[in-house]
Amino acid sequence: MSATISPLAPKKYPKMPAIEGVRIATAEAGIKYKNRTDLLTMVFDAGTTVAGVFTRSKCPSAPVDLCRQNLGQGKARVLVVNSGNANAFTGKRGRETTSMTAAAAAKAVGCSVEEVFLASTGVIGEPLDPGKYSHLLAGMAKDARPDQWSEAAKAIMTTDTFPKVITATVKLGDVDVTLNGIAKGAGMIAPDMATMLSFVATDAPIAAPVLQDLLSKGTAKTFNAVTVDSDTSTSDTLLLFATGAAAKRGAPEITDPKDARLGAFRRAFNKMLKTLAIQVVRDGEGARKQIEVTVTGAKSARSAKRIALSIANSPLVKTAVAGEDANWGRVVMAVGKAGEPADRDRLAIWFGDNRLAVDGERDAGYSEEATSAYMKRDSIVIRADIGIGRGKATVWTCDLTKEYVAINGDYRS
Amino acid sequence: MSATISPLAPKKYPKMPAIEGVRIATAEAGIKYKNRTDLLTMVFDAGTTVAGVFTRSKCPSAPVDLCRQNLGQGKARVLVVNSGNANAFTGKRGRETTSMTAAAAAKAVGCSVEEVFLASTGVIGEPLDPGKYSHLLAGMAKDARPDQWSEAAKAIMTTDTFPKVITATVKLGDVDVTLNGIAKGAGMIAPDMATMLSFVATDAPIAAPVLQDLLSKGTAKTFNAVTVDSDTSTSDTLLLFATGAAAKRGAPEITDPKDARLGAFRRAFNKMLKTLAIQVVRDGEGARKQIEVTVTGAKSARSAKRIALSIANSPLVKTAVAGEDANWGRVVMAVGKAGEPADRDRLAIWFGDNRLAVDGERDAGYSEEATSAYMKRDSIVIRADIGIGRGKATVWTCDLTKEYVAINGDYRS
Repeated sequence: MSATISPLAPKKYPKMPAIEGVRIATAEAGIKYKNRTDLLTMVFDAGTTVAGVFTRSKCPSAPVDLCRQNLGQGKARVLVVNSGNANAFTGKRGRETTSMTAAAAAKAVGCSVEEVFLASTGVIGEPLDPGKYSHLLAGMAKDARPDQWSEAAKAIMTTDTFPKVITATVKLGDVDVTLNGIAKGAGMIAPDMATMLSFVATDAPIAAPVLQDLLSKGTAKTFNAVTVDSDTSTSDTLLLFATGAAAKRGAPEITDPKDARLGAFRRAFNKMLKTLAIQVVRDGEGARKQIEVTVTGAKSARSAKRIALSIANSPLVKTAVAGEDANWGRVVMAVGKAGEPADRDRLAIWFGDNRLAVDGERDAGYSEEATSAYMKRDSIVIRADIGIGRGKATVWTCDLTKEYVAINGDYRS
Repeated sequence: MSATISPLAPKKYPKMPAIEGVRIATAEAGIKYKNRTDLLTMVFDAGTTVAGVFTRSKCPSAPVDLCRQNLGQGKARVLVVNSGNANAFTGKRGRETTSMTAAAAAKAVGCSVEEVFLASTGVIGEPLDPGKYSHLLAGMAKDARPDQWSEAAKAIMTTDTFPKVITATVKLGDVDVTLNGIAKGAGMIAPDMATMLSFVATDAPIAAPVLQDLLSKGTAKTFNAVTVDSDTSTSDTLLLFATGAAAKRGAPEITDPKDARLGAFRRAFNKMLKTLAIQVVRDGEGARKQIEVTVTGAKSARSAKRIALSIANSPLVKTAVAGEDANWGRVVMAVGKAGEPADRDRLAIWFGDNRLAVDGERDAGYSEEATSAYMKRDSIVIRADIGIGRGKATVWTCDLTKEYVAINGDYRS
């Protein structure tokens, strides 16, 4: 946690309701941080289904390996998350740590080790001693309460400056079901699962394969469309839990991803993922401005997304926004370097509603004054129309400031 | 030009000899900068051959278009370069500017417009008025002198903090021939022709197709293996001119790239490109440290280069080096995100001679003290052995500092 809260932090946070079938406890295990919580235990009632998406890194963390393995069963009873140490690139000892943690967690809640899910975030390469926290799990499982969602979001923070929480209530059939989500950023964030950690739970009765379908489709335009610094973490994990408790109140059991009754739920879930993903960007390390990049007129949606990410990951574009400089020439550069089909002489560029370039050159009607005023906002929209097709994509990022360099220049020490 | 010279600037500069058949003039045209030269004219004797490599950007500048067009003839009589305005993304007016400049230059030296080569560097998207400098070309062509190489290097600088010059003399057959090179960086530097502009000239009598072969092969492990910020310019241009004047002194005319007599020349040329490319990195915007990244044991050389660039372009690796922090976990991350074949449990990482990780975890013999001392050096070598093949590659970059953000946060204004 940083001393300075991001200027893009929400003005207010939602009051997080309970999700029936989920109980939460946090603790100060002192893994790396002092005087703050760094351990989260989330206990699920029997019958809870689970789905997950993970980093595409070729060097995934030990907890990611464990989650992938346990996901096959589609059942979850407990989630244990620590901050301060990623248990990544820790070799055989890393696997011993996840085994021992899973055993302790399974014992604490009385389930099998295949129903345990783990996530760790923080420094890479330092061995994580399970002795620091595994003795706490039994007590946490016993003391866990349904009203601890905000505390959960705080316990998983690293360089985040604010906790990320969101809640939604929607109809499933005729019955209200609730979705709660938490996430943490804030550096080493790039597509291929953008946030390092995010957890969503609902009381809706949804089968694991349907959850997985919701999750896999939902991430493409949300978590996989945000980038802070183009650096993909070893630990990115997004888990979705469904306790099914709403079935008692008459919510229909959903076993088919095409079930029409899932519509409102899917929309609410996707909106939640988008909001959490954008919160991660708004708390990007050193972020002072949110940047939305939309590319239209590309050859395909896939091509549009690649161009959009080329713009969003360009250090020169990001530093220009930090300097409140409408340097659209750098957007031209980023379009040009993306390697995707483009025609220089058809390209048009907007910052907000200000069209700066059209037909391959500066817009004659371009107003430096209006654009400079626009650049002072804390949320900047960049649009590039490639002019050769119908492909469209939007991604989100933040500016690149001196604070990013300061935060990352001495993070480990 | 920046007020503060890079701490990585050369301690001394070579005295640049003349190249027979090349005359140089510089001038203060006031295109953007004041009280410094910003215009370079290089005049070549009749019979000079030329080769070039250019940016792969889909949005190339107007001068790049013109050079590509004129290269077909393989003959050069004059090069005109301006700094302060890139004449990129300037549409029809940009093409008019290159046409008018080429016409004025051709008239000044008495050659055809197809024998004119142009390069422009600076801001993108601002129209470049040829009226600002085209009237100067006739006088410059007349006053041009062979001993102006250092002045030439200064006139093409933008945010560079020192001029980049190099010279070499080698045998071609039994005759000494000379190679002179200049380059400018310093931001918007990434593979796909790394420097924005570099020009090399020799008095060796070498046919244009042979020059092109030398150049295309020479850039792969030199200019195309350096990166400052992963941003590829619209204007990257490297031109190689051969006046052939040494033929009078008995140097053999080289018309076949496989000619054995070319060996020493090729080696000297490649070394020159490497030195110029590394100088560009050492003058990268805000650079305080040079970083050499070598990847060994990858599946192929191509795979090794991709992994090396993933490490070299990672903002988290670059900020860690800036902070003198041997944060090898970020190297693991960068290997993992490269998308190339890798086996976490075979990976080994060195900073200098300090092996920090081996067999997928922290090296038991790792000394924090020795490594911390090493990180204080101004040239850092990172090596990652992937452990699965024989592919090898080396790339060069610089650290990412607050100064980079400062330089690029208000460059245009």
